[in-house]
Amino acid sequence: MKLASLREGGRDGRLLLVSRDLARAERAATAPTLQAVLDDWARLGPAIAAEWTAFETNPSRGFPFDPAACASPLPRAYQWADGSAYLTHVELVRRARGAEMPPSFRDDPLMYQGGSDGFLGPCDDIPLGDEAWGLDFEGEVAVVLDDVPMGADEATARAAIRLFVLVNDVSLRNLIPAELAKGFGFFQSKPASAFSPVAVSPDELGAAWDGDRLHGALLCSVNGTLFGRPDAGRDMQFGFPRLIAHAARTRALGAGTILGGGTVSNRHEDLARAWVDQGGVGFACIAEARTIETILHGAPRTPFLRAGDRVRIEMKDQEGRSVFGAIDQRVAAVATQCKAA
Amino acid sequence: MKLASLREGGRDGRLLLVSRDLARAERAATAPTLQAVLDDWARLGPAIAAEWTAFETNPSRGFPFDPAACASPLPRAYQWADGSAYLTHVELVRRARGAEMPPSFRDDPLMYQGGSDGFLGPCDDIPLGDEAWGLDFEGEVAVVLDDVPMGADEATARAAIRLFVLVNDVSLRNLIPAELAKGFGFFQSKPASAFSPVAVSPDELGAAWDGDRLHGALLCSVNGTLFGRPDAGRDMQFGFPRLIAHAARTRALGAGTILGGGTVSNRHEDLARAWVDQGGVGFACIAEARTIETILHGAPRTPFLRAGDRVRIEMKDQEGRSVFGAIDQRVAAVATQCKAA
Repeated sequence: MKLASLREGGRDGRLLLVSRDLARAERAATAPTLQAVLDDWARLGPAIAAEWTAFETNPSRGFPFDPAACASPLPRAYQWADGSAYLTHVELVRRARGAEMPPSFRDDPLMYQGGSDGFLGPCDDIPLGDEAWGLDFEGEVAVVLDDVPMGADEATARAAIRLFVLVNDVSLRNLIPAELAKGFGFFQSKPASAFSPVAVSPDELGAAWDGDRLHGALLCSVNGTLFGRPDAGRDMQFGFPRLIAHAARTRALGAGTILGGGTVSNRHEDLARAWVDQGGVGFACIAEARTIETILHGAPRTPFLRAGDRVRIEMKDQEGRSVFGAIDQRVAAVATQCKAA
Repeated sequence: MKLASLREGGRDGRLLLVSRDLARAERAATAPTLQAVLDDWARLGPAIAAEWTAFETNPSRGFPFDPAACASPLPRAYQWADGSAYLTHVELVRRARGAEMPPSFRDDPLMYQGGSDGFLGPCDDIPLGDEAWGLDFEGEVAVVLDDVPMGADEATARAAIRLFVLVNDVSLRNLIPAELAKGFGFFQSKPASAFSPVAVSPDELGAAWDGDRLHGALLCSVNGTLFGRPDAGRDMQFGFPRLIAHAARTRALGAGTILGGGTVSNRHEDLARAWVDQGGVGFACIAEARTIETILHGAPRTPFLRAGDRVRIEMKDQEGRSVFGAIDQRVAAVATQCKAA
């Protein structure tokens, strides 16, 4: 099943059924919003699945699907938590900050609590108040959850996964070191994230979802040039059930929680050939490229994103068809009342 | 105006009007839930205020108000962000962890992103998986916001404050040092918070709200004994507008965002006389008492909360009447599938 949220009605949008080929869409009859389905999955989950199947198998139904008319599948959510399960990314980004990766990171997942009060839509501009903040994208895979009880084991966690989405976890790199040094984690350095136009159920992913990891290249482009194609199923130290169990260790997770796996990153056998045009898998964020440039050349070369730059994040199936639709955003400078609060 | 959420209907409860004396309540006709009012404050804010005034001035209306039948005013929210504006607390709690307070903390607010997917109700048990986690309460004041634009200045931030609530920001003290050392802030160490039964509009607070700080003693009791009565308007380094502007520096804040001022704490002139029974103002959390005990005696004496312990947090007006109703919770041991995920 593939679902989206049309920017229509209230802040939570209007739930859409989307055809497997992303060509057609139709307003769902089962429930007005995705959160409404998640709030009552036992009853509405089977109903929306049946409604979607009837829609999918009748090619005459629906109107043309337009990702640009959509909000993120959950336009806002009650929780956005993001793990950091690709240790190559953790290691490189920390090296760029002059920080080492403790060995415990191989056994104990790293996770932060993100803001979820208003996400950017898949084709929305990324508002940037100051280029000096160092705007970066982060390409990720995330799961949308049903209720998870406190202290859930991995089997319970796995069974609570309802949908998959792609994420652009927008980061302000130059604000991160000082903010993390304060000890309370990210706040100003992690503004609103954007999600793929379509959320996809596990059964629709076939063998690409092995119950722990989602396999497939995450295609990340900057200004139309492929910047990275790391495989989301490779080098992911902790699978999603483990990340969910970590999040639920001391508290229940409410239905509609979105949990990310962190910036996708594969191990680079040869740092000098990590770039896509050198035959490498490249990067799902700019910071990784800059860190390797610093290691190789003493200073970063790839700039962070500036006003007018475009970022595209997508995943294709074995036949080359887009699974989630594309996150396709432009950076837009915005004037604000106050930059220094 | 005073509002609450009856545990009725869906996950967001049923919006109640509550009389000033907290004796009576009535289901609101303006909107079914508090979030619905916040989502459309320009239209529904004046309507709910008018409805409340008509209810308040007719003592024959309504049914007896029962805080135990209520969820938190927002049973779940799209954002819970918590500042830490009382530097005495920051300094003491950091001292307990062997960490110093950087001087920049006097100019740059400390804030963390909390989980908001499901709050405890004002009289709900606090579920505790393991007493070794070091369960503590934290008595706080928080504001509930309308939309705040990115980069808002303090005047815009102040004008976005719609309601006030009290908070028990439940903390697992023994999990904090290792979690913060990982660098990504709190996650497992901050399980679900609880809020006062009633949310109160700024106009209802009179002179106690000076536009920056809410003045009044926050009465915190443990097992029926007064543990602290610090004044929320004293020693708060940053007022709420400043904290809101800090939160909104790089991103807009969505309507219904709850923003806390941090554990209320007043400067102790004489550490040995900080306790209430010594004539001091005492503490709005156990950690502060334990830190001072460690300074005075070399080791903490006051235990963290155990199964069966009760915590009560309340604020009274000049005439001794409860403003928000009381947070009144019991700690309950819960068995979970998995403690070590």
